Amino acid sequence: MSIKFPLILINFKAYSQSSGKKAVELAKVAEKVYKETGVLVAVAPQLTDLALVAQSVEIPVFSQHVDDVTPGAHTGHVTLEAIKDAGAVGTLLNHSEKRIRIDQIDSIVKRAKELGLVTCICANTPEVSAAVAAVNPTMVAIEPPELIGTGIPVSKAKPEIITKTLELVKKVNPEVAVLCGAGISSGEDVAAAVKLGTVGVLVASGVVKAKDWYKAIMDLVSPLIK
Amino acid sequence: MSIKFPLILINFKAYSQSSGKKAVELAKVAEKVYKETGVLVAVAPQLTDLALVAQSVEIPVFSQHVDDVTPGAHTGHVTLEAIKDAGAVGTLLNHSEKRIRIDQIDSIVKRAKELGLVTCICANTPEVSAAVAAVNPTMVAIEPPELIGTGIPVSKAKPEIITKTLELVKKVNPEVAVLCGAGISSGEDVAAAVKLGTVGVLVASGVVKAKDWYKAIMDLVSPLIK
Amino acid sequence: MSIKFPLILINFKAYSQSSGKKAVELAKVAEKVYKETGVLVAVAPQLTDLALVAQSVEIPVFSQHVDDVTPGAHTGHVTLEAIKDAGAVGTLLNHSEKRIRIDQIDSIVKRAKELGLVTCICANTPEVSAAVAAVNPTMVAIEPPELIGTGIPVSKAKPEIITKTLELVKKVNPEVAVLCGAGISSGEDVAAAVKLGTVGVLVASGVVKAKDWYKAIMDLVSPLIK
Amino acid sequence: MSIKFPLILINFKAYSQSSGKKAVELAKVAEKVYKETGVLVAVAPQLTDLALVAQSVEIPVFSQHVDDVTPGAHTGHVTLEAIKDAGAVGTLLNHSEKRIRIDQIDSIVKRAKELGLVTCICANTPEVSAAVAAVNPTMVAIEPPELIGTGIPVSKAKPEIITKTLELVKKVNPEVAVLCGAGISSGEDVAAAVKLGTVGVLVASGVVKAKDWYKAIMDLVSPLIK
Repeated sequence: MSIKFPLILINFKAYSQSSGKKAVELAKVAEKVYKETGVLVAVAPQLTDLALVAQSVEIPVFSQHVDDVTPGAHTGHVTLEAIKDAGAVGTLLNHSEKRIRIDQIDSIVKRAKELGLVTCICANTPEVSAAVAAVNPTMVAIEPPELIGTGIPVSKAKPEIITKTLELVKKVNPEVAVLCGAGISSGEDVAAAVKLGTVGVLVASGVVKAKDWYKAIMDLVSPLIK
Repeated sequence: MSIKFPLILINFKAYSQSSGKKAVELAKVAEKVYKETGVLVAVAPQLTDLALVAQSVEIPVFSQHVDDVTPGAHTGHVTLEAIKDAGAVGTLLNHSEKRIRIDQIDSIVKRAKELGLVTCICANTPEVSAAVAAVNPTMVAIEPPELIGTGIPVSKAKPEIITKTLELVKKVNPEVAVLCGAGISSGEDVAAAVKLGTVGVLVASGVVKAKDWYKAIMDLVSPLIK
Repeated sequence: MSIKFPLILINFKAYSQSSGKKAVELAKVAEKVYKETGVLVAVAPQLTDLALVAQSVEIPVFSQHVDDVTPGAHTGHVTLEAIKDAGAVGTLLNHSEKRIRIDQIDSIVKRAKELGLVTCICANTPEVSAAVAAVNPTMVAIEPPELIGTGIPVSKAKPEIITKTLELVKKVNPEVAVLCGAGISSGEDVAAAVKLGTVGVLVASGVVKAKDWYKAIMDLVSPLIK
Repeated sequence: MSIKFPLILINFKAYSQSSGKKAVELAKVAEKVYKETGVLVAVAPQLTDLALVAQSVEIPVFSQHVDDVTPGAHTGHVTLEAIKDAGAVGTLLNHSEKRIRIDQIDSIVKRAKELGLVTCICANTPEVSAAVAAVNPTMVAIEPPELIGTGIPVSKAKPEIITKTLELVKKVNPEVAVLCGAGISSGEDVAAAVKLGTVGVLVASGVVKAKDWYKAIMDLVSPLIK
């Protein structure tokens, strides 16, 4: 299925808690919350689980990364075509844990459009957010790396970073949707993020490491239920 | 299942012909040949298809690549644990299309052993083959890059490279099995490779791009049927 | 000395013709042309020749690259502080032969400003030019990679790329100066580039491989002499 | 000049204390100690200072890194030819702060031999030391990364790593000289290293950050004076 906003995008990273069979389980919990609340929850499982997860759920599935190569002799690389064949609707790109070059982002975004795939480009500063917005992705996710995994939400600890990002991105390209991430773990954090003007959040450990996935995701979507 | 020799290891690369549903189909053909002949055929599908393929067949499934990180906050990376969770028995490493560093190979091989996973390290020259043998992997695959994808088999075009590789590898570490690759597409090429002293082959386009997968794989295993 | 526009910036790359003692010779020829014509010519010698060239001439000397690290335990890396200590006024960044990430460009540009160093960021497309302009460098150099080293000047073969780059860059950040490069080898190419709205050119093989350096550089600056 | 053993090789890294003019000063102090004691001291200044330092002293000058490219259109890269033109006798390679791939080490070592240049390959474990020895460099320097910059000398804290490295390297290639590094700062550390069977040390902060360079280097060479 396609994406819509507001959006809660769960990045499974390479956590053991969300690997293999557990990736399918977590994706099914996300799907359940979506069906119950109507707030869209999307998942980005590990690369190795992508096809298996995508065929198991009916919510949008993202790849965590794509390489700037086309199908062919590229052992160990991930193509846009492969994630589409696997059933993904799009991909995260340039996460702070997997940065790529701006010419690669430009190339991948252009090709993703041709293939009908969605792109969510991560950025560490307002200036970098503006820069990646200039290559016309679907979304930009601002994530100050120093807050990632801390439980200290960017939307509350550094709202000025989000405000400045929105200002710079909208000036460069008003059609790009802005998500925020880093330290998000509660509905309160999501509410603060949306109030600042973002259309959703990128979340990882806040969900993946939660003892009760259903409860954690339900908490995140709660301020977005209409 | 575990591996044994002789071994035909099929690398699906990022070819469109072996992506998504077709990855499962190709793996099933490989499995069929194994069941009919007793010659072990293993497959290395794209990363995105790994879990899906591994749960669909009972032959050994390899990852095409693994990153030198442990489970955790590593967006877009592939861990040994993830490929194990996905059902793989091991991984290719350092393919000419995805070279990594020797300290990373050393680290991954050591951890793979602890996890009971098999490693097949690709190398481009006899000297590099000897180098990677020094870190004690399960297998080394010698592949002169200039022959990859050409259809000109290394086992016939440059037998002296295989001979020298075997000599240097055995001197450094006699327990390491040696495969050869590059240009392999027929049973004749496999027979030549085994006659030189290797225990099998790494093959990609010779199978993946074949019009008839069953026929192509059956031809490869034919000289190995007892 | 500081920079001014129009500017002819000569990239020595890793050409043997401009290495070691010949780097100093070529820089002195560039200096001579500047002194005779008043048109500023700057040079970017190989990293290994940087300090030697910088202490030999009184025209602006650029580094070809800088790594995103601060002084310290970084064997084999090039810091902004090192190029400043060597006598450079600034650096090229993100050349098509040495691409770096956008977060690194952002970080280096911010630190370069603090150190009083000039930055010239190369870009391959109008969109990437706009992207790098968003991090506020001194200059952007648009260079379609397919024309680099061909002798086919971008300013004449693909003027629309320069026009679109100027349009997008000026919209994102009107304070960024735009150079163009790729295939530039004559005064005619420079005149065309300046007429389109750029403030100068980035040139490499057109000068370095010329039989007569003085004649080649004099030809380039000729349309800019007042 | 050429190298000989025992050897004290000083890596200037990217320290501000050994940058620009101070690089020449430090190299001259090293030269002075060599002339007074006959114990060879070599220096590896930052890339940007290489030509300037090499033309200022008569002791062996090493590059800290070389890229696996030949002279040509390679902006921001360092070639073997460039360091030779700059006056270097050879290069460090694969330092823990600048790791490269084994196929690149193989390629660079082969070309360095043709050019009459010396190679010193750094390695982090005994197994990696054996691996790099297999591509036939002049020297291998074993440096456990966890001790680098600590002042805790590997020769005293982890002698078994050196012993095992010597054993594995000699088995793979008895012609390769073994240095050790990490935490070395005194003559006592050097004496311990040589007693274990190495032919010298790789040292960085222990010298560069010393208040009195002459005293620090003289202390290092003291146990080697005949």
